[in-house]
Amino acid sequence: MNDYPSIAAVDLGSNSFHLVVAREVDGSLQILHKEKQRVYLADGLDDKNHLSQEAIERALAILKQFATTLQDFPLENVKVAATYTLRRAKNIHSFLTQASKVFPYPVEVISGQEEARLIYQGVAHYIHHDENRLVIDIGGGSTELIIGKHFKHKLLASRNMGCVSYTKQFFADGQITAKRFAKAEVRAEQELEVIFANYLSAGWQSVVGTSGTIKSILAMINANDAEQELITLERLLELKTQFIASKQIQALQIEGLTPERQVSICGGLAILIAVFRLFKIEAMQYSDFSLREGLLHEMQQKLAHKDIRTNTIANLSERNTIDKEHANRVSTTAKWLFEQVRETWHLTDSDYINLLDWAAQLHEIGLGVNSSGIHKHSAYIVANSQLPGFTQQQQTLLSCMIRFYRKKIRLEEFPALHTMQHYEILQLIVILRLAVLLNQKRITDQGFKLEVTAKQNSMFLKFHNKWLKEHTLLLADLQQEQKYLKKVGFLLDFH
Amino acid sequence: MNDYPSIAAVDLGSNSFHLVVAREVDGSLQILHKEKQRVYLADGLDDKNHLSQEAIERALAILKQFATTLQDFPLENVKVAATYTLRRAKNIHSFLTQASKVFPYPVEVISGQEEARLIYQGVAHYIHHDENRLVIDIGGGSTELIIGKHFKHKLLASRNMGCVSYTKQFFADGQITAKRFAKAEVRAEQELEVIFANYLSAGWQSVVGTSGTIKSILAMINANDAEQELITLERLLELKTQFIASKQIQALQIEGLTPERQVSICGGLAILIAVFRLFKIEAMQYSDFSLREGLLHEMQQKLAHKDIRTNTIANLSERNTIDKEHANRVSTTAKWLFEQVRETWHLTDSDYINLLDWAAQLHEIGLGVNSSGIHKHSAYIVANSQLPGFTQQQQTLLSCMIRFYRKKIRLEEFPALHTMQHYEILQLIVILRLAVLLNQKRITDQGFKLEVTAKQNSMFLKFHNKWLKEHTLLLADLQQEQKYLKKVGFLLDFH
Repeated sequence: MNDYPSIAAVDLGSNSFHLVVAREVDGSLQILHKEKQRVYLADGLDDKNHLSQEAIERALAILKQFATTLQDFPLENVKVAATYTLRRAKNIHSFLTQASKVFPYPVEVISGQEEARLIYQGVAHYIHHDENRLVIDIGGGSTELIIGKHFKHKLLASRNMGCVSYTKQFFADGQITAKRFAKAEVRAEQELEVIFANYLSAGWQSVVGTSGTIKSILAMINANDAEQELITLERLLELKTQFIASKQIQALQIEGLTPERQVSICGGLAILIAVFRLFKIEAMQYSDFSLREGLLHEMQQKLAHKDIRTNTIANLSERNTIDKEHANRVSTTAKWLFEQVRETWHLTDSDYINLLDWAAQLHEIGLGVNSSGIHKHSAYIVANSQLPGFTQQQQTLLSCMIRFYRKKIRLEEFPALHTMQHYEILQLIVILRLAVLLNQKRITDQGFKLEVTAKQNSMFLKFHNKWLKEHTLLLADLQQEQKYLKKVGFLLDFH
Repeated sequence: MNDYPSIAAVDLGSNSFHLVVAREVDGSLQILHKEKQRVYLADGLDDKNHLSQEAIERALAILKQFATTLQDFPLENVKVAATYTLRRAKNIHSFLTQASKVFPYPVEVISGQEEARLIYQGVAHYIHHDENRLVIDIGGGSTELIIGKHFKHKLLASRNMGCVSYTKQFFADGQITAKRFAKAEVRAEQELEVIFANYLSAGWQSVVGTSGTIKSILAMINANDAEQELITLERLLELKTQFIASKQIQALQIEGLTPERQVSICGGLAILIAVFRLFKIEAMQYSDFSLREGLLHEMQQKLAHKDIRTNTIANLSERNTIDKEHANRVSTTAKWLFEQVRETWHLTDSDYINLLDWAAQLHEIGLGVNSSGIHKHSAYIVANSQLPGFTQQQQTLLSCMIRFYRKKIRLEEFPALHTMQHYEILQLIVILRLAVLLNQKRITDQGFKLEVTAKQNSMFLKFHNKWLKEHTLLLADLQQEQKYLKKVGFLLDFH
């Protein structure tokens, strides 16, 4: 059994929470166990995006059960992704704090684009196709659309429309009419307009649908006509006619439609019709593999020491002509400094050294915008780009480190992170700043030997042989840096 | 005489105001008249960048005299550029309002990079050289460094250090010591560090200095040794030794140094030494042609209907793979809409139609960052890029138009412009938004005929033959747009 370690993916969706356990056997994944629990999280989100305590408790109750199932799993073998509703919730920190008390695995709130990417990975690793494909997933609060080929996505999008939110918005009192459908469909088309041109010019040869909504719709179509394996616009419009004839959501009695799904199906059907119409889709096949399988696959990669984030950073750096030699020098110095202070500063998280490397790789990415204020431009690009594999927290942290790699540090602009205190963020930033500063000459052999000693809030740099005294520019830079750091309560000394 | 119209450039510097009158004879410029007035504007700027009323009045008195000289000049034949001190002044609007009462020509506050660009143009059109050259200008509050070849700059930088500010900072009580010089030089080297690597890798074969500071330094060197036409580090260090021997700024008695220049020369010399040392400059020649000649040259181009800004936009668009066909369609529609409402809305400024064109060209430039929130990314890039030929106001306006080309309009984020009211900015934005919206299908022949009527705060779009009724997506988009515009007090109607 030890040769085939089990891994688990948990998907905290707007409608349901899912748990999947799998193990890797000779390179491919075997699904061992699945759990699904309705949570109706989206219902608990009010107009101001505040998640009600009732909804949080429904969620906690399920997480408690999942924790029992996962009892013997090591931390790194479980990946937990939260999507739309938790992404929108303003009080997400309160949720995460409460969750951490009943569920020991870290919950990662992923962006819509990250969700889209993972869905594509889930599909790509289970369904083979040799040309571009369009993948569509309709969730409770968001719809993801991806174009990709083989294992590589080309376009990722996540739009804020889902079966739960659209049913709430357009079928609020439970009445089903042609006019309401028309309104919901046009609204969905508007949502899709922004991405329309890009997707059309990329093109695709096949279309795959995932998610419970599409599964339900296919089940209803199949109940009508058991021969169908594909969804077509014609079938969808027939279904809509049936829906309208029922007049009420509560009155919907269609074979293949479960009572749980019944309450949100109208919004989902309207969105799917809009997608078919705008993108002129002829036929869509259904895939049972999606976000969860994407998570499993990624974990498998990570356990085999292939971190997709390394690729992401390399791609971004590639797209934006960066001085790679300099970036590598800064990275090397940062990692070396990190090793000097790691114990004293209790920098235990294995990801910190990665973050320093990536920050070093990207800190000059803003040069494409303007060399003046480069740190701000670099941070802006990192904060706003698609960073496959990164959680929102990681992306925010990376952007913050880069924002303050030089000039004044503003603690009040540090993000509130669930996993890190401000002083820990500052420690990483100090390492990065000194790494940049020590490489000011942009040459590989600087000609100095350095010893570093650190305490909780201080660092002492000792240059051998009075080297520093003779290098007035570095000395002046360090003096300036000393002032910057003193303002945020950090003591830098050197001689 | 009419064949050779006179043009004038006015340079509102931190130290002095300059006026140059020239005329074009057979394609080249003949300088007819020069005026120079000391204003010591930088002295009037306090720690909070507030310009004192005394300083403003010194400036107004000079502008009044310049206005007399320029009496018969048409508006478009005079270009007025304000540099460092007015760029920094927080109360610039108060200054501009007061100035407009005594001086009819619009004052353009230019960015440091724009200043650098114009200086290079001034040098390039008077001094020929076939390889890369490094041009350096030390002003009262800023120092510009440019690398360029022939008429094209390659790198532009403006650093916040000048002869006035450095003398104030490092020689405040008038004492001259070796230690003070060393401090000022190291501080200047620190300022230059950021651009150092880029400049070094671009490289240069000759070095040109401009500005009063460098002129003075050359005059002093020549007084020592009349053979010199070039400035070298050796000569600069000799001069520094002479300075230190004098012990006091007031005691400086060196041939070639005027009393006016005496008060700010120490800071300037320290900066020049730092530049020589860091960039390892062997020799520098002096050019009398600089910002003012750059302004004259640009005006000459503009009068010949060659607007450099058109090139700027094309270059930026080129660097950031934009869907040019779509941009052109949006531009065409925007210009057409503009013509429909131009009279009713009194859109008299000839630059408005250019701004609409440029906004259309660049509105999707943010796609390189992320398609999600594209309008914000586009606006960010436009606000933060180097835009040769644009004043800060124009750049801010262009960025604002693009920021609000879609989604919610926030009047409170509109910039306070000296030349435009908020409702006028909104009118341009409405035109741009509708141009984007009407091109939602991204095809050239949309198949509709449109009539536009407008009042001060409203617009009515009439589609022929009930076309709109059958095109529900555009209809829905227009309805959404109606809501967005209503929130900012603009009435959009259509049928």
